[in-house]
Formats: sequence, C-alpha cells, structure tokens
Amino acid sequence: MAGSLAERTLARPSFEAAFAAPAFVRAMLEFESALAAAQSAEGLIPADAAMAIAAACKDICIDVEALVTEGKRSASLAVPFVRMLKEQVGKPHAAHTHFGATSQDVLDTAMGLCLKPCLDETDRALEAAVRALARKAREHRATPMLGRTLMQPALPITAGLKIARWAVALAGDRERLAEAAEAGLAVQLGGAVGALEGMGESGPAVRHRMAMALGLADARAWHAHRNAWLDLLDRMALVVATAGKIARDVALLSQAEVGEMLEALPKEGVGASSAMPHKRNPVGCAHALAAATRMPGLLAIVHAGAASEHERALGGWQAELATVPQIADALGSSVDFLEIASASLVVDAARMKKNIEACGEGGAKGDLAAATDELLADLAPYLT
Amino acid sequence: MAGSLAERTLARPSFEAAFAAPAFVRAMLEFESALAAAQSAEGLIPADAAMAIAAACKDICIDVEALVTEGKRSASLAVPFVRMLKEQVGKPHAAHTHFGATSQDVLDTAMGLCLKPCLDETDRALEAAVRALARKAREHRATPMLGRTLMQPALPITAGLKIARWAVALAGDRERLAEAAEAGLAVQLGGAVGALEGMGESGPAVRHRMAMALGLADARAWHAHRNAWLDLLDRMALVVATAGKIARDVALLSQAEVGEMLEALPKEGVGASSAMPHKRNPVGCAHALAAATRMPGLLAIVHAGAASEHERALGGWQAELATVPQIADALGSSVDFLEIASASLVVDAARMKKNIEACGEGGAKGDLAAATDELLADLAPYLT
Amino acid sequence: MAGSLAERTLARPSFEAAFAAPAFVRAMLEFESALAAAQSAEGLIPADAAMAIAAACKDICIDVEALVTEGKRSASLAVPFVRMLKEQVGKPHAAHTHFGATSQDVLDTAMGLCLKPCLDETDRALEAAVRALARKAREHRATPMLGRTLMQPALPITAGLKIARWAVALAGDRERLAEAAEAGLAVQLGGAVGALEGMGESGPAVRHRMAMALGLADARAWHAHRNAWLDLLDRMALVVATAGKIARDVALLSQAEVGEMLEALPKEGVGASSAMPHKRNPVGCAHALAAATRMPGLLAIVHAGAASEHERALGGWQAELATVPQIADALGSSVDFLEIASASLVVDAARMKKNIEACGEGGAKGDLAAATDELLADLAPYLT
Amino acid sequence: MAGSLAERTLARPSFEAAFAAPAFVRAMLEFESALAAAQSAEGLIPADAAMAIAAACKDICIDVEALVTEGKRSASLAVPFVRMLKEQVGKPHAAHTHFGATSQDVLDTAMGLCLKPCLDETDRALEAAVRALARKAREHRATPMLGRTLMQPALPITAGLKIARWAVALAGDRERLAEAAEAGLAVQLGGAVGALEGMGESGPAVRHRMAMALGLADARAWHAHRNAWLDLLDRMALVVATAGKIARDVALLSQAEVGEMLEALPKEGVGASSAMPHKRNPVGCAHALAAATRMPGLLAIVHAGAASEHERALGGWQAELATVPQIADALGSSVDFLEIASASLVVDAARMKKNIEACGEGGAKGDLAAATDELLADLAPYLT
Repeated sequence: MAGSLAERTLARPSFEAAFAAPAFVRAMLEFESALAAAQSAEGLIPADAAMAIAAACKDICIDVEALVTEGKRSASLAVPFVRMLKEQVGKPHAAHTHFGATSQDVLDTAMGLCLKPCLDETDRALEAAVRALARKAREHRATPMLGRTLMQPALPITAGLKIARWAVALAGDRERLAEAAEAGLAVQLGGAVGALEGMGESGPAVRHRMAMALGLADARAWHAHRNAWLDLLDRMALVVATAGKIARDVALLSQAEVGEMLEALPKEGVGASSAMPHKRNPVGCAHALAAATRMPGLLAIVHAGAASEHERALGGWQAELATVPQIADALGSSVDFLEIASASLVVDAARMKKNIEACGEGGAKGDLAAATDELLADLAPYLT
Repeated sequence: MAGSLAERTLARPSFEAAFAAPAFVRAMLEFESALAAAQSAEGLIPADAAMAIAAACKDICIDVEALVTEGKRSASLAVPFVRMLKEQVGKPHAAHTHFGATSQDVLDTAMGLCLKPCLDETDRALEAAVRALARKAREHRATPMLGRTLMQPALPITAGLKIARWAVALAGDRERLAEAAEAGLAVQLGGAVGALEGMGESGPAVRHRMAMALGLADARAWHAHRNAWLDLLDRMALVVATAGKIARDVALLSQAEVGEMLEALPKEGVGASSAMPHKRNPVGCAHALAAATRMPGLLAIVHAGAASEHERALGGWQAELATVPQIADALGSSVDFLEIASASLVVDAARMKKNIEACGEGGAKGDLAAATDELLADLAPYLT
Repeated sequence: MAGSLAERTLARPSFEAAFAAPAFVRAMLEFESALAAAQSAEGLIPADAAMAIAAACKDICIDVEALVTEGKRSASLAVPFVRMLKEQVGKPHAAHTHFGATSQDVLDTAMGLCLKPCLDETDRALEAAVRALARKAREHRATPMLGRTLMQPALPITAGLKIARWAVALAGDRERLAEAAEAGLAVQLGGAVGALEGMGESGPAVRHRMAMALGLADARAWHAHRNAWLDLLDRMALVVATAGKIARDVALLSQAEVGEMLEALPKEGVGASSAMPHKRNPVGCAHALAAATRMPGLLAIVHAGAASEHERALGGWQAELATVPQIADALGSSVDFLEIASASLVVDAARMKKNIEACGEGGAKGDLAAATDELLADLAPYLT
Repeated sequence: MAGSLAERTLARPSFEAAFAAPAFVRAMLEFESALAAAQSAEGLIPADAAMAIAAACKDICIDVEALVTEGKRSASLAVPFVRMLKEQVGKPHAAHTHFGATSQDVLDTAMGLCLKPCLDETDRALEAAVRALARKAREHRATPMLGRTLMQPALPITAGLKIARWAVALAGDRERLAEAAEAGLAVQLGGAVGALEGMGESGPAVRHRMAMALGLADARAWHAHRNAWLDLLDRMALVVATAGKIARDVALLSQAEVGEMLEALPKEGVGASSAMPHKRNPVGCAHALAAATRMPGLLAIVHAGAASEHERALGGWQAELATVPQIADALGSSVDFLEIASASLVVDAARMKKNIEACGEGGAKGDLAAATDELLADLAPYLT
C-alpha cells in the first residue's frame, strides 16, 4: 500500500487502494490496451496485434519491485513497464505495443484513471454530507448559539445557520469539483514531443477513441501545459479547506469547556488514548485538520512543478506525479471526516443556551432563523 | 506605494497602484458610500444621512499613518477607518455610518474592488497576448525546431506548434479566470456574525443594491467560507504558472548556445547589467520566473488561512489580506512578461534549423504543420 | 513604507522602516562607500576617488520612483542605482565607483544590512520575553491547570510548566538565531561571476575590510549558494513558529468559556471591534497567528528560489529579494506579540481550578511543580 | 514499501526501507523495550517485567493492516500498537508495558530512530561527494568555462571554480546537518501531558537511560515545542536545495547545444526513453530537481503544523508525522544524485573553450585559477 504507516493512519482505504501499485499498474495496462484497440480501429496496427496486446495486458504479472528499480534508472516507470509488456506480447506484435506513445502518455493517463474513482466517491460523499447537514441545519434553524469572531463571543446566531453555511460551502465545492473534473480528467496522448507525430492523420481519432473507452475527456496533448489538471487539484484543495474549516469549528465546539457539538457520540474503540483510557479524542477532526495542514504545501509543490521545461519537464513533472497521490490522500482524509461528522454530529442546544447566558449576551438581534431559512432555500435540492 | 524596493522592481505599476494606500482607502469609502445609499433606498437610514455620508466619503482626507498605527491596535484597519469617517460625517448622521456592517465587510469588499481592475487588465492583456502569439504561431506553422524533453533533444516540432501551445494555454487560463471572477469578485456584507442581523428583512436587498452599485457579484456573506474567492486566487496562479512556463522556455531558447528565440530584440537601457555593459538580460523572463517562484508559496498561505475559526478567523484571514496584494503583484509581473514577449518575440528559424542538424535529427516525423494547424483552429477566435 | 495597508497593519514599525525605501537606499550607499574605502586602502582606486564616492553617497538624493521604474527595465535595482551614483560622483571618479562589483553584491549586502537591526531587536525582545515569562512561570510553578491534548482535557499540569515551556522554547530559538546570524549576515562581494575577477589579488582583502566596516561576516561570494543565508531565514521562521504556538495557546485559553489566560488586560482602544463596541479581541494573538500562517509559504518561496541557475539565478533570486522583507515583517509581528504577551499576560488561577474540577479531573498526578522547577533551572540565566 | 509507485521511482531504497512499515514497527518496539529496561533499572517496574517486555518485543508479529485500520480509529498508530504489545506481553506484566508513556512518545521517538540511519548515510555520502568534487575541481582548477548570469554568458570562470563552489556548499550543508542532528534526534518521553507525571522523581533518569540505549539525544519532552526537530528538517532541506542547484547547473550544461558537462557517461539501461531509444536523459538531475521541487512545499507543511494546540496538537502534529518520511525521501533522491554526479561527472574542456570563443569572450579577467585555489584551500580536509 502507498504511504508510510503514519501517512496510512490518515488515509481513506479506498483512496489508498486507488493509487496503490496494483491499481496503478492496472491503469497503465488499460492505457496500453485502449491504445492498441483504438489504433487497430483506425488501421494503424493490425487487429491481431490489438488482440494480442489486450490479452497480454490481461495476463501479465508485473514485478513491482523490478518496475521500481528499473524505473528509477530511467526516472520513469513507463520505460520498464513498456519493456515488460512488450516481452509479454512477444513477437510479432511487440513492435505494435505502445506504438507512437511516450512515457508521459501512459503515466499521466494512469494518474487520471486512478484519480477518477476517488472523485466519483468524493462527489457521492459530498452529496450525502450536504444532505445530512442540511437536514441537521433545518432541525436547528432556530436553536440559538453564540456567534464567535476572533475566537471571542460576538452576537448570537443559530446552530442551523452555522451548519447550513457548512452545507452551502460543501455544495459549492462539489459543483466546482465536478466542473473541473470534466476538463481535468483527460486522456494524455501526444507521443514523444506531444504532436502525435507517429500516428499521421489518425492521431486525433485514436485519442478520441481512447478517451471514450477510458471514460476520460478528450483533450489535445497537455504534456507541458497542465492547467486543466492543476485546476482540478486546486479544487480538490478547496474541499479539503472547507472540511478543515468545519473540523476547526467542531474541534473548538467540542472542547470540554464549550461542549456545544461533538463530531459523534463517544464509541468504544474510537478516539482512544494510549495514556488516558477515559479520554475520547475528536478523531475525525484530527484527520480533516491534518489534511488541511498538508494540502497548502502539497498544492505549492504541484504549482511549483508547472514552470516546466520545453516539451517535457525535468523535475517538476516528476515531483507532481509523486504528489498527486498525496493530494488524493488528503482529500480522502477530509471525506472520511465529512462522512463521520455529517452522519453523527451531536448538537447540544442546552449547552449553547447556557454559554450565551454566561457571556451576558441577550437574545439574538434580528430574526436569525430567517437568515438560516435563506440558506436552507439555497439547499433545497438537497432537502428533498 | 506598496512593497519593498525589491518587490516593487518586480511589480506592474498599475497593479501596484490598485492596492496602494490611496486606492484601498478609496475602495473602503466606496463601500461605505454604497452601503449608505442602499440602506437609504431600503428605508433603513434617512436619505439625509446617505447624502451626508456620501459627501464625507468624497471630502475626507484619511491620515494613512494614523490608520495603520491605530489599525494595528485592533488588528483591523476598519476600526480606525470607521471612527475617522464617523468623525467626518459628524452629528447627527454618524450613527448611520457603517450601520449594520462589520470590519470584514468593508475590508473584503475593498479587496475585491482593488482586484477588479487588475483582473480586467489581465483579461485584456491575455487577449492581446493570445492574438499576437497565435499570429506568430501561424507565421511559423511549418518552421522546424527541436522538440526537447527532459532538457535533451527529442524529435523536431515546429516553432508554430510550440507558440500555439502557449497561446492555447493562455486562452484556457483566460476563460477559467473570467469564470472565477464572476463568482469570486463578490460584495461582502454580513454584519457582526455574517447574518445581516442588524438590517432586518432588508439585509439581502441592501446587499443586492450594493453589489449592483459596486459592480460586484451579489453573494451571501462569505466571511468564513471563502472558496469562491480562493478559487479566483488559484486561477490567477494558473496564469502565473503558464507565464512562468513560457518564460522558462524562452529563457532556455535565449541561451547564447541555443539562440532560437529572444523575448525581444536588444534595446538601449533594457536588460542592462551593472557589471557588464555589453550584456542583455532576458528581463521579462526574470519577472515571470520570479512571479512563478513566488506564487506557489503565496497560494499556500491563502489556503492555509482557510481553516478558519467560527464566524471570523483569528490569524488566517488577516494573513490572507496581507497576501492578496502580493498575489496580484505576481500576476502583474506575469502580465508584463506576456505583453513584452507576445509583442516582441524574436524567432530565429535559421538557428533552429542549425540546431536540428547539429543533433543529427533528420526531418520531422509526420506532418508537424498539421499538428500546429489543429491548434490554430482552436485559436480561430483570436485570429480574426 | 513597505507593504499594502493590510500588510502594514500586521507590521512592526521598526522592521517596516528597516526595509523601507530610504533604509534600503542608505544600505546600498553604505555598500558603495565601504567598497570604495576598502579599495582605496588596498590601492585599487585612488584615495581621492574614495573620498569623492563617500561624499556622493552622503549627498545624493535618490529619486525612488525613477529607481523603481528603471530598475524594472533591468530586473535589478542596482543598475539605475549605480548609474545615479556615478552621475553624482561625476568625473573623474565615476569610473572608480562600484568598481569590480556587480548588482548582486550591492543588493545582497544591502538586504543583510537592513535585516541586521531587526535581528538585533529580535534578540533583545526575545531575551526580555524569556525573562518575563520565566518570572511568570516561577510565580505559577504550583498553579494547577488542565493539560490538554488533541483539544480535550488530559491530566493537570501547572500554569508555570506551560509558561516555562514557552520560555525555554524561545530561549532555544534565540540561541539558534544568534548562531545563524553570525554566519548568515555576510557581506556579498564577488563581481560579475563571483570570482572577484576585477580586483586581482586584493579581492579577498577588500571584502574583508568591507565586512569589518559594515559589521557583517566575511564570506566567500555566495551568489549562487545561499544556504548560510537560508539557514538564517529558516531560523527566523522558528521564532515565528514558537510565537504562533504560544499565541494559539493563549487564544484558546482566552475563549470566554475557558477564561484561563488573557494576553493583556482589556485596554481602551486596543482590540476594539467596528461592529461590537463591548468586545475585546486578542490582537497580539491575531498578529502572531497571521505571521505563523504566512511564514511557511514565505519559507517555501525562498527555498524554491534556491535551485538557481549558474553564477546568478534567473527568477529565483529575484523572488527571494522580494520575499525577505516579508519574512522580516512576519518576524516583526511575532516580536510584537511576544512583547505584549510576556509583559502583560494575565493568569486566572481560580478559573484554572474551576475548569479542572468541572472536568472531573482530580489533583495532578505526581509532583508537577517539580517538572516546572526542572525547566526553571534551565532558565536560570534569565532569572537573575 | 512506503509511497506510491511514482513516489517510489524517485526514492532511495535504503531511505524508503528506513521508514517502511517493518522498520517503523521495529523502532516502536525498540522504544518500548528501552523504556521497560530503563524503568526496571530505576526500580519503577520489576526486572521480570522488563525481561518479559523485551522478549515480547522480539517475538511479536504485528499485523500491519490491523495496525493501520485501528490506528485510523484513534488517529494514532500507538493506540493499537500498545494494545497488541500488551497482549503479547500478557499477564502479569502487561500493566508495566508502555508505563507512564503516551502515543506521542513512541511515535516521535520512532520517527527519530528511523531518520537516524538516513542521516548517517547522508553524512557519509556528502563526505564522499565533497571529496570527489574537490578532486575534480583541483583537476580543472585552470580549465576556462563561461560564467553565466541570468542565463546569459557573462565572463569566464574555471570549471574548477564552479565545481569547488558546489563542494564547499555541500561541505557547509554537511556541517550544519551534523550539528542539527545532534540536538534534533532526541528521545521523546513525556507521558500524557509531557511532564513525566507518571514516573515520579525517576522520570528524567529513565529518559536519560533511554537516550543512551537508543543512541539519541536526551532532551526534555518536546511534544509541543518541536523546533530542534524542525531545525533538523530545515537543514535536510538545505542539502536538497544545494543538490537541486547543482543538478540545475548540470542539466543546463548537459543540453546538446551546450555540452560542457554530463552527470555521467551514457550507460546501457540508464536514462532510456520509452519513445526514443537513442536518447539518454539526465536521470540523476531529474531526481534531484524533483526533490528540490517537492521540498519547499513539504517544509511548509511541517512549519505550518508547528502552531500547535496546548500539550499535543490536533492535526498539525499528525500532518508532520505523515510528511517526515517524504522529507527523508526527497533527501534520499538528492543523495542518489550527489553520488552519481560526484562519481561520474564528465567535464568537456574542449567544448567549454569552444563556447567561450563562440560568445566572443576573450580570456578570463584576472587569475581565475587563484579564485579556485582559494576554495580548494577551504576544501583541504577533503583533499587528503
């Protein structure tokens, strides 16, 4: 599995699996298989070759350690991978394998194929989280709680208003993410210098067929201009930021002295401490806040990698490849938190009331339930 | 003016001016004036008050040093600013000034007002750069040049293909930026805890009127959930990344030993060296690459600030406010470079030919002009 | 002054001034004056020239706007600066001005000269803060308070232990900073390619004289290998990190529901809110936390700039120059906080007791005052 | 093994292994075993218990997947780890296992134990690299090559000067790293709130014994004030920065059109391309530049994590734990590059001469070999 033990302790298992060696190898094989099928359909390689390649992709058993060791020697996994695949395909079709493609084609496409199920899962999790939070917000539309600014008591709001804001923010993130995924999850196919120079006039048609087959967007080679992809990573970061903000709020409200919310009721075996058995830690918040601490730096890496050299970068792209799985991991931690918190959030209205009174704040100014209702109206699609 | 001398040496004057003290103060005054007008139209304050406030906003002469000194004591510029404005308004309308609003309302809105002209200018500059590069790409659609990967010669491409890719990338950035600006440049109006709690039922109408008057989007209070704004900053970063990538290419091609492109013909007084009078430095590239070096870290800051506390952050938001002008500055440096490079780019076809030959590369594989033409077709709207 | 209004609201005035245009210009002039004096002493230029240059450095009135505008055209402030200075020196000694030096020499040295007083001030402020906190820790060596882990109550500690840890951390930062300043604040003198190639055998002697005169370390040219300088910036970041950690603790303890510490007693005009006149915000914490939010990104910038090209970087170095004053600003915000918090920290022992009891925690396990005393022993030099 | 396939392609196997699950589990077991031994020596637990625990630590076979799954539920690997170990120890000594310690004690100490061999290896590799580069510099002390600034030809230097600068920079990094490792690789032992509250007066003695046994520094609990550790990570980043700078230079010099240096002579199977069999890529440079691209963001993460809450952070610390192995990986990539480049660096003096002449630069100004000799004198300890 991907990641050190400490990293894995923060990871969402399905996201981990999506980028683990078996899944990544499978994605590279899907690329080669789809390439051959498309090239055969376009008459660039014989139908026999495509079938032989598809069979080899099904049968091959890649030695991951050898892949890594050799990959290191060429600074590219794809070099030994293609060699191994050609050996499996054997004569006479080895020469038709990976035809006209380059390392970056298979690696970038595989990265997208691995990320895709994570984004699908994130979309479903966000929808469920927004639904659950919207309902919880409706339930507490008129529950007064302290608004707090600069970590000091300000004026009262309602618990529903706070929760509805979380939900609206997540709904916005979900839309932005879906939009970016449409353009950003694209097949990469350019050949050595990104010009599809080896496939003659059929190049774009091959690429289009591959995109259809792999469920990715069709896009001109994006080897060196990766902004649709970066935009997608940025928007994954926005989900992490919102989850981090919600976790910050919940963690502050879970303090013993505040006691207004808990991410979940205490449960046997969750949030235990090795030193203090009586203690229950806000584990979901820890995950979301760790992700929110990691993401800005990870984002800085992939943006730094973008000032790349010529037709394929030396260093920047390789750094990006190593970082994308970690960005997915941080998103996975955030999704974990959102699932827990939206499903199990505990709101203590009595404690909220007590804290308002203790601060000497009178009742809410204005009709705060009205402000909540406005947001609930925005959330109507999630409240059916 | 904003920024240290070293920072200012990298800055685009119009962008610098957009966030300089006079402009920022003016933007804060626009906010207050628009607020009063909207509240008067909605019957929340007397028409007389709105007129008095508008007049005060026109007449007031803010002591910037006092503003900073006092602002530091409240960790907010808005506190002394509102005090000064109320003094200028005087009795009896001082009480109607800044009515129902909070510090973050005026500061966030002012930040958006200052950013707006920078984005408008960026949009125009990007359009012009794409046009100029598209034309240059068409001119060199069949000019062979080396494609280079991992900083080594790969197969030939055409100069037109390389330049067209730059143009297409910038056109994509331009669209993404425009889209994000539509949502991200929004009025901020929420009052103490973001619930418009002081304006009763008229709150949303006041906000809507302000948005219209200020030329910003109308949006529910986004004090603590700033992702539409962050998305805008991220997309500014994408422009900087593309400019950095282009500059990296141009700088590499401008090396004496390569000599295939120059950002501009040598000009008296541009790119001079203090030690070597005969030398001409790629100054535009230096600006764009400095911006691309700065942006990932600046982006990390505003993302880190997003895991904010409750209804107004302690630290994270303040860090963001200090960073946005620097993000704009980095964008400005990139725009400067794009203007220079697109207007003056020198392409040396003969040197390109010589370098291909020296590497022992034969002619281009396939019809490279065809690949260029594909991209030129995408650029058709810019080639009229 | 340096920085946007929002940035200036966070800045320490003396640090701002240290990098403001007048100070930076003065530092550049000091460099040129010291260079001429040293070269005259070594017989490289006539004594008359050195006197003329020193006089010009005293008399010259640099037009900062012209400096910036022209500086932009060469991507270097030093080019117009040297031109202006040579004009002031006039014939026949203009040719002896900036002799054998390059842009980076004057800019790097000026940066160090501007940083130096900030570091001196930081050292004094850290010493005072450690002293004050050590005394406060001694006072509360046996005051029980809740220890808290993962934002939940853990076992009791003493208030003195917590405060002593802050003090010990700051004392460690202070030592590390002093050590790094010794090597990192070095004169830069290398000439065009860093080899002192224009000064013959006297180069190293000139550099040594300059170092003595300017109060900087003597070091071989560090144009392209800047790690002693980066190490210094990293250690400034460590101070900011500790201040941020202390501010995080104080802000959490200042929450109305916790109420165990305040950074200072409420004071007229400090921490005021524009929306809620009754409110008092933890202003010092806001400054320190904003600095701690900014610093990781700023550090990422200067580290990213370090993978520089050949004998002088294109982009990375320029980004560093623009970032160092911001790093100093972030340090300044932290120093402000440390001064406030160490001088005025309010400890509410009664509330601490009440919070322990409310959590159902019994008395402290073990002799917690003993743990505090251990740290107080480490702090002995500060407790005289 | 730790890391995604793409990350592993960049990793140094020994560094990967140092943080892989078996090594990390072993390090945690070493901690527990050393803790028990020290506590037995101090009379806190029976000698029998220490022996039983030592035996259990030897015999236990930890189910890593269970560890991760359960660890996730408590946001801490240590909780299931301690549970598993106690089961292995069994009655009656289970209660003496992990006595007085907390999760962070075992995790922080294990992290240091895993890092230690990486730093030892780095030290040896740096020494060897400096030696080899110093010799190469001496060999080329008078070989003229172009100095280049802002990526343009400046004045000539010698190849020896350039290489000697690299060597001096690495030697400085090595010293700084060794110094930081001495303080930063420290045992962590504090118990629940860092006060060694469960071990009475013997706490410090236990900690001291553990430090001796584990080969780590003895230090007061550093749960929440981690600057000695951060300083160590920062200095690892300085090595990565220098390696990145050297790789940048080598990659630029390896361009076909420049051809002055190669990281190594072309070798069968190294640097191959999947699309262009004739091509040889600068693989070592790719590794070092990828590391230099990653490090600034990774550093930003661990600095961001430092503004932690109270006696143990919620989020920041966990993010740091996940990031340290990646920081080590980036260092490992850099060490790989330094080994390759220092052992195999190819210098083409004829091409250097040709490039100087092509630029119309005359001979070197001044005696450049003298400048090189100065640096060689600094490198004397490495030239024996």
